[in-house]
Amino acid sequence: MAFAPALDALIDAFRVLPGVGQKTAQRMAFHLLQSERQGGQRLAQALGEALERIGHCRQCRMFAEDELCDICRSSRRDARVLCVVESPADVLAVEQNTDFRGRYFVLMGHLSPIDGIGPEELGLDQLRERLRDGEVKELILATGATVEGDATASYIGDLAARHGASATRIAHGVPVGGELEYVDAGTLAQAFSGRRQL
Amino acid sequence: MAFAPALDALIDAFRVLPGVGQKTAQRMAFHLLQSERQGGQRLAQALGEALERIGHCRQCRMFAEDELCDICRSSRRDARVLCVVESPADVLAVEQNTDFRGRYFVLMGHLSPIDGIGPEELGLDQLRERLRDGEVKELILATGATVEGDATASYIGDLAARHGASATRIAHGVPVGGELEYVDAGTLAQAFSGRRQL
Ligand SMILES: [Zn+2]
Ligand SMILES: [Zn+2]
Repeated sequence: MAFAPALDALIDAFRVLPGVGQKTAQRMAFHLLQSERQGGQRLAQALGEALERIGHCRQCRMFAEDELCDICRSSRRDARVLCVVESPADVLAVEQNTDFRGRYFVLMGHLSPIDGIGPEELGLDQLRERLRDGEVKELILATGATVEGDATASYIGDLAARHGASATRIAHGVPVGGELEYVDAGTLAQAFSGRRQL
Repeated sequence: MAFAPALDALIDAFRVLPGVGQKTAQRMAFHLLQSERQGGQRLAQALGEALERIGHCRQCRMFAEDELCDICRSSRRDARVLCVVESPADVLAVEQNTDFRGRYFVLMGHLSPIDGIGPEELGLDQLRERLRDGEVKELILATGATVEGDATASYIGDLAARHGASATRIAHGVPVGGELEYVDAGTLAQAFSGRRQL
């Protein structure tokens, strides 16, 4: 059934959200139009503004509105330890579930030659620069416990070694094949404390 | 953990969507910012336009961009039979799963004195006008199989009787307490064919 064109367009547009199919998209559109028009306006505006304002931190590639994210700007975070993660959601998971007080480097993915994702796409040139500066003494490699995550960690471990920084890999507890974002708090905390030298 | 303000605002705004909590809202925001910026722009725009353009059909209260919705405008739909439903999603369910070829009246809710929703809020003045016009001969009362849906159907059934129109209530198949929108195709088709005189 075809609705008014603007409604069809909205339903279609909602399908860009993760896990949202036709039926859910319809429910979302109907719900906003029927009983949450103000909330809908707020969402349209927040989305437009976020897309316009949110870029990546120049130093760690985390989402940021300014040149540097809050964590890179904070003098209370230990600049000698960098936790390397695949995604912004992983930063959140580590912040919420561990007592890590260093800084981050967000790869925005993992090595995947088949998809054309190599060291450059992951910002490893940037990471190399930071290792060259000499301030960073330790990398905690918190990429996913997947084949790609392991390969990425191993590649970055070599990079660290060549610049005289130590690299540890989080290990115990993260279920094999699991994504960091969905790991429970205790498991992730254990993975941090049980990290081992590469 | 606090993100950039524009990101916090976006995550918060996503929570207006049905069934979306903090965690899902975060995933949605991250997904759009990380890998679907174009789709995100399209969503922001489609949402703004839908909220601006989509109102309600003057005749049946269904969502519509113009004064009348497609179904009310179509001369191929039988104007003598009106299917009365609670929500736009119900119109969709009936259109997709039955061979109903009449028109609709969308209540946008059901009678609920406790929430201050009376006949006026459901547009029953409008429905009364249409019954008075004399073109409508039958109302199919397809409100939900809930206490409120039954009360609403009964109220509208009386209204129909006072204007010399017959009223049938869809009956068999819709599980008690169930909402029309989630009923499977066969059940809904059966509910239509098994409707009985009120
Ligand atoms: Zn940063
Ligand atoms: Zn209409």
